[in-house]
Amino acid sequence: MNSFGIKFRVTTFGESHGDAIGCVIDGVPAGLEIDGSYIQDEVDKRKPGVTKFATQRKESDKVRILSGVFEGLSTGAPIALIIFNENQKSSDYENIKSLFRPSHADFTYFKKYGIRDYRGGGRSSARETAARVAAGAVAKKLLKKFNIEVKSGVFAIGGIEAEKLDFEYAKTSEIFALDRLKEEAQKAAVLGAKEAGDSVGGCVFVKISNVPAGLGEPLYNKLDAALAGALIGINGVKAVETGEGVNASKLKGSQNNDQMDRNGFISNHAGGILGGISTGEDIDLKVHFKPTPSVFLKQQTQNETGESVEFSLKGRHDPCIAVRGSVVANAMASLAVADMLLLNASCTINNLKKIYG
Amino acid sequence: MNSFGIKFRVTTFGESHGDAIGCVIDGVPAGLEIDGSYIQDEVDKRKPGVTKFATQRKESDKVRILSGVFEGLSTGAPIALIIFNENQKSSDYENIKSLFRPSHADFTYFKKYGIRDYRGGGRSSARETAARVAAGAVAKKLLKKFNIEVKSGVFAIGGIEAEKLDFEYAKTSEIFALDRLKEEAQKAAVLGAKEAGDSVGGCVFVKISNVPAGLGEPLYNKLDAALAGALIGINGVKAVETGEGVNASKLKGSQNNDQMDRNGFISNHAGGILGGISTGEDIDLKVHFKPTPSVFLKQQTQNETGESVEFSLKGRHDPCIAVRGSVVANAMASLAVADMLLLNASCTINNLKKIYG
Amino acid sequence: MNSFGIKFRVTTFGESHGDAIGCVIDGVPAGLEIDGSYIQDEVDKRKPGVTKFATQRKESDKVRILSGVFEGLSTGAPIALIIFNENQKSSDYENIKSLFRPSHADFTYFKKYGIRDYRGGGRSSARETAARVAAGAVAKKLLKKFNIEVKSGVFAIGGIEAEKLDFEYAKTSEIFALDRLKEEAQKAAVLGAKEAGDSVGGCVFVKISNVPAGLGEPLYNKLDAALAGALIGINGVKAVETGEGVNASKLKGSQNNDQMDRNGFISNHAGGILGGISTGEDIDLKVHFKPTPSVFLKQQTQNETGESVEFSLKGRHDPCIAVRGSVVANAMASLAVADMLLLNASCTINNLKKIYG
Amino acid sequence: MNSFGIKFRVTTFGESHGDAIGCVIDGVPAGLEIDGSYIQDEVDKRKPGVTKFATQRKESDKVRILSGVFEGLSTGAPIALIIFNENQKSSDYENIKSLFRPSHADFTYFKKYGIRDYRGGGRSSARETAARVAAGAVAKKLLKKFNIEVKSGVFAIGGIEAEKLDFEYAKTSEIFALDRLKEEAQKAAVLGAKEAGDSVGGCVFVKISNVPAGLGEPLYNKLDAALAGALIGINGVKAVETGEGVNASKLKGSQNNDQMDRNGFISNHAGGILGGISTGEDIDLKVHFKPTPSVFLKQQTQNETGESVEFSLKGRHDPCIAVRGSVVANAMASLAVADMLLLNASCTINNLKKIYG
Repeated sequence: MNSFGIKFRVTTFGESHGDAIGCVIDGVPAGLEIDGSYIQDEVDKRKPGVTKFATQRKESDKVRILSGVFEGLSTGAPIALIIFNENQKSSDYENIKSLFRPSHADFTYFKKYGIRDYRGGGRSSARETAARVAAGAVAKKLLKKFNIEVKSGVFAIGGIEAEKLDFEYAKTSEIFALDRLKEEAQKAAVLGAKEAGDSVGGCVFVKISNVPAGLGEPLYNKLDAALAGALIGINGVKAVETGEGVNASKLKGSQNNDQMDRNGFISNHAGGILGGISTGEDIDLKVHFKPTPSVFLKQQTQNETGESVEFSLKGRHDPCIAVRGSVVANAMASLAVADMLLLNASCTINNLKKIYG
Repeated sequence: MNSFGIKFRVTTFGESHGDAIGCVIDGVPAGLEIDGSYIQDEVDKRKPGVTKFATQRKESDKVRILSGVFEGLSTGAPIALIIFNENQKSSDYENIKSLFRPSHADFTYFKKYGIRDYRGGGRSSARETAARVAAGAVAKKLLKKFNIEVKSGVFAIGGIEAEKLDFEYAKTSEIFALDRLKEEAQKAAVLGAKEAGDSVGGCVFVKISNVPAGLGEPLYNKLDAALAGALIGINGVKAVETGEGVNASKLKGSQNNDQMDRNGFISNHAGGILGGISTGEDIDLKVHFKPTPSVFLKQQTQNETGESVEFSLKGRHDPCIAVRGSVVANAMASLAVADMLLLNASCTINNLKKIYG
Repeated sequence: MNSFGIKFRVTTFGESHGDAIGCVIDGVPAGLEIDGSYIQDEVDKRKPGVTKFATQRKESDKVRILSGVFEGLSTGAPIALIIFNENQKSSDYENIKSLFRPSHADFTYFKKYGIRDYRGGGRSSARETAARVAAGAVAKKLLKKFNIEVKSGVFAIGGIEAEKLDFEYAKTSEIFALDRLKEEAQKAAVLGAKEAGDSVGGCVFVKISNVPAGLGEPLYNKLDAALAGALIGINGVKAVETGEGVNASKLKGSQNNDQMDRNGFISNHAGGILGGISTGEDIDLKVHFKPTPSVFLKQQTQNETGESVEFSLKGRHDPCIAVRGSVVANAMASLAVADMLLLNASCTINNLKKIYG
Repeated sequence: MNSFGIKFRVTTFGESHGDAIGCVIDGVPAGLEIDGSYIQDEVDKRKPGVTKFATQRKESDKVRILSGVFEGLSTGAPIALIIFNENQKSSDYENIKSLFRPSHADFTYFKKYGIRDYRGGGRSSARETAARVAAGAVAKKLLKKFNIEVKSGVFAIGGIEAEKLDFEYAKTSEIFALDRLKEEAQKAAVLGAKEAGDSVGGCVFVKISNVPAGLGEPLYNKLDAALAGALIGINGVKAVETGEGVNASKLKGSQNNDQMDRNGFISNHAGGILGGISTGEDIDLKVHFKPTPSVFLKQQTQNETGESVEFSLKGRHDPCIAVRGSVVANAMASLAVADMLLLNASCTINNLKKIYG
């Protein structure tokens, strides 16, 4: 089940150490300007090998558009994007080919499929998320057409939390930090973990602005449910919060309710979604990433024949997946909202009249 | 989009003050014992009007099986279940028919559909969840066939947290409390809010045991993503955590990793899911409910013509939706796992050989 | 898999001799006038027990709307419709409960599910099509809003073919005959078969007018593919033709091509669909029904234990399923086109601009 | 909507004159031997430029496997296949870029999307079917594992019908003729049309053997409905028949019924499907292709501004699309049956017990 979305539907393919990764984006409305350089810019944001806060695997991650675009515009046909892999080092994985790295998907893929591509985690590798980001760029392009903006940044690392949300600043930060005043401490947490052969968890904030009221398809494809499913589906995400999130469970109704005056909502505890439908206020999401399971410390595990073994991991890994995860979360949120934008189009007779007269 | 699941697929219908609510369950494997009294028992757990901790609306919630069962066994045909509404008091809603109750779905349904059934919240009412619980009972029956057990209870109310998870005790508690020692304080929080005309949030814990390793359909229908989507889709849920959840974002990899020995996993920070696939360990989920938006205090809001108005709510409401939400969360988790059980059936040539020889 | 359609999505339930049959219609745009009497009129067209050309089973087929309609308008919530069964004679089926009626679905349901509801064919009975017609009525109501008209009638019975297509006349004919001059011969074919304890096949013509150009979702949900799938899925249908149909395979391109002048298409061999998308011309479909497999002549078959047995069928049956099949084909075509109308809404940036500004 | 199937799901991309065409096959069970040369052999069957009975466009149609296969076996991950285009002659289309070729999809794509890739028909070109054949090869490989065989050949051209079905002979025939004695006349019909600058229609027969009884997902994903939808969706197909097909509408029940003795079905008028589920007998399908709309005779049409124009087509075209259509029909039928094989896996408790114990 490698497709995401219903009307704006992305299918991804490819493994960490295979020939290529890519995606097919189906349902892109015809007439959208599709810009190779815009897609490339988005993909470059999560490109590995650029800073010391990410894996040192060097990939140019050059995106090629194979179909669905003619004279610069989407045609309504599926848009296929491909990125060829260049810097696989499968030899790094020889020593772990028959054992299960702790907290990786090695064990579960083996249990499910009876076979696994051990090279770099195969399909379960975060490398696949480059395809998500490429698809997300097309979604963002569509959303921009309607002034919808999807912003993201790193909120916390190892429990060190931002106190302000400066999405503009985050764009320029090597770790996409939202709070310039916390950035150094957060960076130190990443590098500290890295130097210790360890890793560290983090939290990403996603804010979606200018979403028109009315998006979301209750009862079983609510906007918050779709966003949560999209985000928890990212490698390493263990919790998602909308609006007040976990804190809402501690509040009184009188504290958490969003009253209105003639100008609209006075507060936004809801995080822009009520009854699974957008209110028009900012959609606020917190996405909690676990620490990278790839640590270089000695660990105990099982091998494929069920024996207990000790090992030390090699290879090149992100010390904190939340950092590049910020870009991926942005892409997945964009895909989810784009899908909702299309799904909602036929929800009333009035809308249909605007189209069919 | 009122269907949930792909192979084990439930479609619900009905409004709070309409004639009936119900569901059609498609994909139930043929040959399952379907037991009206078992379904009824599950539905009775969330029945309103029974304790002082829930709404006083009196509904017998009698479930009738309309199809799909012959001589006590499922036939493979869709199973339709219906519950007729009995105790609607639509007059309670006359005074709010043209205004938007704060933090309810009134505003968003109106914006999306241009029309809304204001009586008791119409389709957005938690009353619809009775249909989910009925469907969930059929899912649970299927899961039991394979020893999978879905347990749930109230973990916290208003920030008062359980220190132990006693799912047996929860079954007997009026508020489904998991920790007998915290129950009184939690009850007091509910009744205190109720007496003040207010409401309070809470957190439900769901534990799923004996799930075989291998369930989950990566990359875009992972087990955790499906569960999170199912649970966030419940009325009032604002956050979902799996395993270490929010806390994982604060940990080091060396703390969060689940190492293995020859007996399997030594710890379960993952909460039973790695790479979106079940590990065979317990699946642990925390589901955070906001406080009921229906409070009786004076509130400010907008009406349909955009004017600011003050009002006080009437009607019968749960002071803490997390309490009965515990039953609904259990049902939704059951539906999600049942779907995964069926989806996984064809995932290997070996499985197919067992079936087709 | 008891759902049809993607955006305009119908899920049906119920067996021939169960408590009730019905459907849940999801995706009906909000603001559509839903008229119980209109639905009832459509359902009455296929009601059994009315003429000597159909089964003598007496059912009032009273449709009840359970949800999704408020003050006469669709709300965007799922519309559930239910018809309780009244005139089951399960005793008619006692003598065939362990044998497989030739050319019925008894054998295949038993092989697939290992169990079958033998009473009147259970889920495989044409009785279920009453639910399709009820759902189809809602689809037709939607289509009428946009001037799209779905017409049908009996084209041929036992090879006796109409020479003209008079859909107005068909409405008044007991056998929905399209050609008044052929009607008597067609009726005689039905009654002749009936008196001989036999049955006879027939062909239904469906014409859909005023479909806007542009409906259909290539490449794998083309308009003709969706229509063909919808129609072949009706009980007893063995072939579907669009436009020139079978005859197209005998023609030269110069004969079959539809040239255009400034007024549009000069001919319509295509039957209103090119490349899987509507041209704006009439959509023409021929739907070929096999003779009712329920004949009263002595037949040889197998029983559940694999023995060869002779038997004679009892019960009440249509001598020619194509007659009432005409109503069902109309409903299914309506559902397919309604779905396409909604799916197409988001296909261009221009359409989205009309909705979202 | 460029995906086909539910569990065995293929998504295709690419245009006639774009960079590449290809597909992503999702849901292939893990552990299937995937053989590049087998896929290539299938694709070569429909390769253009080989005989005088097909278009002279020269494409090597070299298939490259990008993902989803490790050490010769499917891993459960999506299998992406790509074919780069080599022999586009877009200049052939300069003179028709602003007019609508009669009976092509030019008009409808323009009406739907407001834009079209006129080069070789863009997405609507039969060139895309190479991707279907590549995907179909993987499906066939899966089916062979369970002894299911999908055979096809040309039954009729221009009304000249085969009298025998020799699928072995068809493999060696340049036009995939099923009847050696009719082959010359059929070839003459193709070449005669070609020399006259015209084209001719034809009919393909598909026979699927050794399908286990029980495949098909009633009521709305019946085996025959899925097959018919798959086949009518192929470029140029105007009618599909199963079993007796059109002829069934002319028969009596006593003639059309398939009686049984202890050895099973005595006849197979049903064409291997009853109630939408396979009987275990051969599945017989006739697929009727219209004549290629690309004829070189002078034709009248409209241009994009609505004016009437005369023109003569250039380019390289198949004089009879049914010939290579035989290969495509085989692939689509294989995909449909593979999907049904997987979907059926979870249909009974007994099947699940075989898997989960």
